[in-house]
Amino acid sequence: MLKVPDHQVAGHMAGAGALGPLVDDAGNFFKPLQSNERGAKEVAFYKGFSTETRIPYKIRKFFPVFRGTRDLEASDGSGLHPHLVLEDIVSSRTNPSIIDVKIGSSTWYPEASEQYITKCLKRDRDGTSLILGFKICGFQFYGNKETGFWKPDRKSVNAFTHDDVRSALRKFVSSNSPSDSDAEPDCSYASTVYGGPDGIVSQLLKLKSWFEDQTIYHFYSCSTMMVYDKESIMKGENPNPQIKLVDFAHVVEGKGIIDHNFLGGFCSLIKFLNDVLNNPNK
Amino acid sequence: MLKVPDHQVAGHMAGAGALGPLVDDAGNFFKPLQSNERGAKEVAFYKGFSTETRIPYKIRKFFPVFRGTRDLEASDGSGLHPHLVLEDIVSSRTNPSIIDVKIGSSTWYPEASEQYITKCLKRDRDGTSLILGFKICGFQFYGNKETGFWKPDRKSVNAFTHDDVRSALRKFVSSNSPSDSDAEPDCSYASTVYGGPDGIVSQLLKLKSWFEDQTIYHFYSCSTMMVYDKESIMKGENPNPQIKLVDFAHVVEGKGIIDHNFLGGFCSLIKFLNDVLNNPNK
Repeated sequence: MLKVPDHQVAGHMAGAGALGPLVDDAGNFFKPLQSNERGAKEVAFYKGFSTETRIPYKIRKFFPVFRGTRDLEASDGSGLHPHLVLEDIVSSRTNPSIIDVKIGSSTWYPEASEQYITKCLKRDRDGTSLILGFKICGFQFYGNKETGFWKPDRKSVNAFTHDDVRSALRKFVSSNSPSDSDAEPDCSYASTVYGGPDGIVSQLLKLKSWFEDQTIYHFYSCSTMMVYDKESIMKGENPNPQIKLVDFAHVVEGKGIIDHNFLGGFCSLIKFLNDVLNNPNK
Repeated sequence: MLKVPDHQVAGHMAGAGALGPLVDDAGNFFKPLQSNERGAKEVAFYKGFSTETRIPYKIRKFFPVFRGTRDLEASDGSGLHPHLVLEDIVSSRTNPSIIDVKIGSSTWYPEASEQYITKCLKRDRDGTSLILGFKICGFQFYGNKETGFWKPDRKSVNAFTHDDVRSALRKFVSSNSPSDSDAEPDCSYASTVYGGPDGIVSQLLKLKSWFEDQTIYHFYSCSTMMVYDKESIMKGENPNPQIKLVDFAHVVEGKGIIDHNFLGGFCSLIKFLNDVLNNPNK
């Protein structure tokens, strides 16, 4: 019953000898606990968050539903392994376009070890995190029945520059072929996907308001997933644009201070999307 | 006619053998150009900013008026030295309470030299910049005619912890003696100084909106000065709370990206002030 997810765009992927998440057909997403303390930290976050009474309902819906932990046969064939049981946020979709954006100019927290800080700082400077306040970690953009998805390998995405990021955020909402590097993205779907009262920017702004005030958590190295169905637009139906925060292995206590690292990067992402909305034709 | 300013709370101070700013009685503030490239960079910023047509009037008023440059006898007795001629933002006040807050978790810019980055990163981690997204660089809090000002030396302010910062932002708007460490700050003036349509938070929010959109400049190592007149409140008059951005020797081009480092820290400062407003009695 368990299988490798069809629509994973970033993170460890299950495969021959590789530990990665699994899904079932009941809408569950099983994420193997990472073997170091990160796995335990992510479980602790989900447990705490699910019973945290200070989280408004309108904010809670931007997080995957947590359904506990379960020991399952690991995808790498190593035997039983503990997994987080989460809501599979794309199980109800057929050919979703997905982009995973890691938020924050800094992926390390002040209390981390010198070695960890040095490693992260180098990566944040090599990628776009430091410059833009966020980094695209992976994506799949649906083209059409013939072309299927455009899903560049991790290495190419990791090498994205400022211009590549801007271009990807335009291609995400364009009707023309996302994999054709000569085609100027037309941003035909920007107003439907990014704009409007139920669009992605509106959802991001709701989360932003919460981040301006909440001092419970600092979300280091956390991603915002943005998802919609291009096929639905082609059929004249609602593409159901949606955002979810994922990856909480590096959440630390807020201690009465807002998460200004996350918030700054989040505002930068919102500005990029507003630029697409306001200049669909460049 | 030129003299050392009465109300400087941070930065290089003029004195015997020390180069620092001077003021005249016509409301001019003369800031000596720093000898390395910083002086030239700050002049370039003011010149560019003063003719930049994309700055709305309601934002421009948060910056000191620029009146050119002038060669003046330096305060350290070294002879003629070029100075920026700026509006003296406190010349019309008698006993202003002032606080200088450097904004941003990072005071270094990605393009800086390795040596400069290492030096700044250490300082940002040693102080509160990295943790809070801002740092108090100096202040003077007026007590009353007998006690005068509370103005701790730079070394004590540099050693401020998170709790010290929270306490200082309460003392800034309290009626009881700011220098008495046993007296619990009463925050009597919080609603008058931080709150209301013309208060400091309202002004900060106007600037924040601009920072969510502007991609012209990145303001590294720039300060927000907050000023008001406690004596006016005692007399039942308007204390005229005011904010100004100062110190632009490390401004770099925005290149189409918002200043998420400044914005994140700015939002953190706003949250601290809102905490005082919402919990005047702790």
